[in-house]
Amino acid sequence: MKKGNSKLEQINTPDDLKKFSEKDLEQICAELRDFIIDAVSCNPGHFGASLGVVELTVALHYVYNTPYDKIIWDVGHQAYGHKILTARKNNFHTNRKYKGLSGFPNITESEYDAFGVGHSSTSISAALGMSIAAKANNEDDKHVVAVIGDGSMTAGLAFEGLNNLSSSKSNMLIILNDNNMAIDPNTGGLSDYLVDISTSQTYNKIRKEVIRGLEKLKITGPDSRHKIVAINNSIKSLLTKQTNIFEGLNIRYFGPVDGHDINHLVKVLQDLKNIPGPKVLHCKTKKGKGFKLAEENQTAWHATGAKFDKNTGEKLDHTSNKPKPPKYQEVFGHTIVELAEKNKKIMGITPAMPSGCSLNIMMEKMPDRAFDVGIAEQHAVTFSAGLAIEGMVPYCNIYSSFMQRAYDQVIHDVAIQNLNVVFCLDRGGLVGADGATHHGVYDLAFFRPVPNLIVSSPRNEEELRNLMYTAQLPNMGPFAIRYPRGTGTTTQWKTPFKKIEVGKGEKLKDGDDLAFITIGPLANKALQACHKLDDEGISTGLYDLRFAKPIDEKLLHEVFKKYKKIITVEDGTIIGGIGSAVIEFMVENGYSAQVKKLGVPDRFVDHGTQTELQHECGFDKQGMIETAKSMFQQP
Amino acid sequence: MKKGNSKLEQINTPDDLKKFSEKDLEQICAELRDFIIDAVSCNPGHFGASLGVVELTVALHYVYNTPYDKIIWDVGHQAYGHKILTARKNNFHTNRKYKGLSGFPNITESEYDAFGVGHSSTSISAALGMSIAAKANNEDDKHVVAVIGDGSMTAGLAFEGLNNLSSSKSNMLIILNDNNMAIDPNTGGLSDYLVDISTSQTYNKIRKEVIRGLEKLKITGPDSRHKIVAINNSIKSLLTKQTNIFEGLNIRYFGPVDGHDINHLVKVLQDLKNIPGPKVLHCKTKKGKGFKLAEENQTAWHATGAKFDKNTGEKLDHTSNKPKPPKYQEVFGHTIVELAEKNKKIMGITPAMPSGCSLNIMMEKMPDRAFDVGIAEQHAVTFSAGLAIEGMVPYCNIYSSFMQRAYDQVIHDVAIQNLNVVFCLDRGGLVGADGATHHGVYDLAFFRPVPNLIVSSPRNEEELRNLMYTAQLPNMGPFAIRYPRGTGTTTQWKTPFKKIEVGKGEKLKDGDDLAFITIGPLANKALQACHKLDDEGISTGLYDLRFAKPIDEKLLHEVFKKYKKIITVEDGTIIGGIGSAVIEFMVENGYSAQVKKLGVPDRFVDHGTQTELQHECGFDKQGMIETAKSMFQQP
Repeated sequence: MKKGNSKLEQINTPDDLKKFSEKDLEQICAELRDFIIDAVSCNPGHFGASLGVVELTVALHYVYNTPYDKIIWDVGHQAYGHKILTARKNNFHTNRKYKGLSGFPNITESEYDAFGVGHSSTSISAALGMSIAAKANNEDDKHVVAVIGDGSMTAGLAFEGLNNLSSSKSNMLIILNDNNMAIDPNTGGLSDYLVDISTSQTYNKIRKEVIRGLEKLKITGPDSRHKIVAINNSIKSLLTKQTNIFEGLNIRYFGPVDGHDINHLVKVLQDLKNIPGPKVLHCKTKKGKGFKLAEENQTAWHATGAKFDKNTGEKLDHTSNKPKPPKYQEVFGHTIVELAEKNKKIMGITPAMPSGCSLNIMMEKMPDRAFDVGIAEQHAVTFSAGLAIEGMVPYCNIYSSFMQRAYDQVIHDVAIQNLNVVFCLDRGGLVGADGATHHGVYDLAFFRPVPNLIVSSPRNEEELRNLMYTAQLPNMGPFAIRYPRGTGTTTQWKTPFKKIEVGKGEKLKDGDDLAFITIGPLANKALQACHKLDDEGISTGLYDLRFAKPIDEKLLHEVFKKYKKIITVEDGTIIGGIGSAVIEFMVENGYSAQVKKLGVPDRFVDHGTQTELQHECGFDKQGMIETAKSMFQQP
Repeated sequence: MKKGNSKLEQINTPDDLKKFSEKDLEQICAELRDFIIDAVSCNPGHFGASLGVVELTVALHYVYNTPYDKIIWDVGHQAYGHKILTARKNNFHTNRKYKGLSGFPNITESEYDAFGVGHSSTSISAALGMSIAAKANNEDDKHVVAVIGDGSMTAGLAFEGLNNLSSSKSNMLIILNDNNMAIDPNTGGLSDYLVDISTSQTYNKIRKEVIRGLEKLKITGPDSRHKIVAINNSIKSLLTKQTNIFEGLNIRYFGPVDGHDINHLVKVLQDLKNIPGPKVLHCKTKKGKGFKLAEENQTAWHATGAKFDKNTGEKLDHTSNKPKPPKYQEVFGHTIVELAEKNKKIMGITPAMPSGCSLNIMMEKMPDRAFDVGIAEQHAVTFSAGLAIEGMVPYCNIYSSFMQRAYDQVIHDVAIQNLNVVFCLDRGGLVGADGATHHGVYDLAFFRPVPNLIVSSPRNEEELRNLMYTAQLPNMGPFAIRYPRGTGTTTQWKTPFKKIEVGKGEKLKDGDDLAFITIGPLANKALQACHKLDDEGISTGLYDLRFAKPIDEKLLHEVFKKYKKIITVEDGTIIGGIGSAVIEFMVENGYSAQVKKLGVPDRFVDHGTQTELQHECGFDKQGMIETAKSMFQQP
């Protein structure tokens, strides 16, 4: 950034921005883009999406009277520019850091953040609610704008919102930010349509001819204006292979416009302010705009995992060369291919996360058997049920916090029918920098009450492989395998497949005074805690449940017969998770012991590293040790 | 039914049906319709939907090779004709009765039931899965048909399925059963569109003129056929106000056809069997067809609550004239209006259940403040969040089992932001004849882990009123009120509003030997059990928690200090519900007692009356008494 005549330096809030003339906006956009590249190169975060909406962000805050007017950023990982322009430029270096700015709009962080976001496709529904509330509050001059990507449009929630909007009198504006990408390229008919409508070469030629034909009809009468609008809309879709879904829902459609032409955007938005009724502005943008590498490889640069050189794009991740344990995601990606080669019935399903969950490996090798179904968790599950009922073994990979969207389908379409669908629950537990909206901490609690469902969690990469293997053996029903974001503990994971008996846990260490009962990779930290406690004179046992359901009753009988002090540890809510399962067992079987439950407490947890957050929640190694010691102190 | 020359009598399976010639089909339809009217007049159940698809049902089983070919009935309450034609005619009188036929297609009941249904909008996703599985199984000759109503099309899941279908090579057929009704009239832009496309008078006139105009363009080249199809599709939508959503998603659209013209339907279906790729057949039908009263008042005759005279339609519900307690639904409907008259910020929201939940009362009196948003639970919740964030107090009424569809929105859009949205969870607990898909038995377990959320359940109608009153007082956050289907216990419910302290339960009866802890209306049965136990020498106390969260710790301290034998009773799953909450409290606070949890066991429960099912699950009065006594027997 040129320090001397920087305009961005003079902007702290949208009011400052509005003091500039329209001809200055191009420079402001350039500076804002540089600021984002600078910031993210030093402090990893989402990248491509915010670069793509720089002009849109500046135009919106220039034209609208924020925070009185409401801008809702769908998903929200494109809102860095918005944050920088709304009084958060000077602490933007804390973005996504523990106690720092959230990576998403958050109503507790700024009055300019109109609605908290994180999961996709909420913006239309929320904006409609806000727009109707404005009317009820006699704020007829209030504008409400939802900015939604074309990827987010594939989710059912967005469609439900559109359908309801179309029958309302709301004046709200939807800005369709069309970059033909979610994190991965979009999928489905809607995506094809959006490409087509903006690339049709012959549209104008056709239009002229058809209008000429129509003139002969001499349309008149009370609704003639209406008919002409309808005809114009329809003509737009001629030769574009499809017709327009917005118009199909009676929502006025404008565009497409170039989302990087700041002055045109400002003019269009000013015009739209005066047009009543629900309307859509279709903006074409480029994800990663202004950073060549990000433009060229949009999936890789969706978010940056490490610092990078902002001139060359080289990742500055100078860790040692010794072999690292793989990510659970890689283990999933390679293992499903290996299993699918042996078992022809296996198929893979992901709702728009092929690179995030590594199903892209199977999609490349077995394109007929691996499906990216779009941002559509509900459909992913019911589609899997349809596959399973006809004898396939679908591995449906959904991030834990997104599985909240498919809860009914798991119960209604899979569990009631006892179908062998394998749910690979990626990103179970505290996920880190994405924060409260993305932590996968309710899954054990909401899956445990579902009849027929097996709920498991591997302790390491090798066990993930073996649970994936076990889940497709004959006579299995619905089978959930929950594993965390990130790397595990073992480099030697590619061992021959071995069946894990359903409902069978494992004693990892014997003890006399106290026992830890864990699930998932936390067992590894608990083992360290055990050794430390042993050293300090508290002989500590360790039992890995491995299955939250069915629970290993034999193992628990052993534990409750031997120990009077027990600590359960889970990377999930302490209400209804395995801690609850263990005490339910204890009470049912007439045991009594002092039991402490460690896990995520009954409040929402913000962002930070996984280590920081586990510490905050008190279930890291230190928390386990301190809790154990406290149980031996007199009150 | 004319006994002498009945054809239906000769039909037990679709193979029998296929033996008849096409000219016999009209009579078979008439007989099938009579059979349904006869059956439902004696044995209440869903009514209008099945009458509307008589011809469609006969045509499908006549043309397709069921059960090899797959027919998926969306929702499934229109499948009575299907059941009667598929080997269940002779026990159809057991429909919806305990141990009898299910009111919905169910894979464990018949091989002709291709997919278990109950909740709306699953059919497209399931059919796509089955269609892709067929291909993988080398069953290229297998046909898969999803029959979906226009009401079900408003749900996001259906859209997600359509969007994915459009990019697949599946040959499946969607039959859009368009009667412009769900249970109540449909809402939203999609509904308007469907009306318009089939009523346009000038379509053909326009079409001719436009084709003439287009001929001048001399469209040729490799994709000319494709362009012509596209143009034809687009023309169809001229003057229909909107364009076609199916075509918009690249799914071939046929129709509309008269869904009551059996011979034409057969011909069309035969033709469609040979057309590759995904396609939609738009059928216009009339809900209640053939029964005049049902045609005229489709909402009232969606389902019949009582036996009726099949000639006059008169309900044969000769119960006594003494005043009955009102349904909880009526109390909700009247109370929200009363509250909204006092508090101008209150709004009402229902996803397509205005008559079922009684929000129709408010919709009539305050049309600007009460919203039917369509079958769209996810949107209903996020829309409510948008209203709340701008200061409104939305009462979002969703049946408990449908709330499973909006779980993520409750967490992500309402609870994280701590918004004062009031969730009125109708039909909590075992619902009766609708069976496994509709029981609202997971709600306490899946809501309890959600931070910030207040979870309450009234003991009677008066308490429902007072909880509804309490939920809108200043400084409340997300507030769920769960109540059952049907009538309560008190006729004197319309008392002055009274605040109920959040988290405060109530001691209903003192005792010495054993205590019941209940939530919701079960307290009334528990009180009877207490008196019986007292009579038999077991002095029994009764405590109503009223809040599953926050739990009344003061009350529980009192209970655990006094009693060593405790029985928790809830009309919901025993995994993670209030039974778990009570023992979590016990263990955390170092109490020990013998605790038995009564409620819905860890399996899916079929249909029957609520009384039958509560008995089966062991938490009716008798179950409570027996459990109590068993705790005093030596093992």
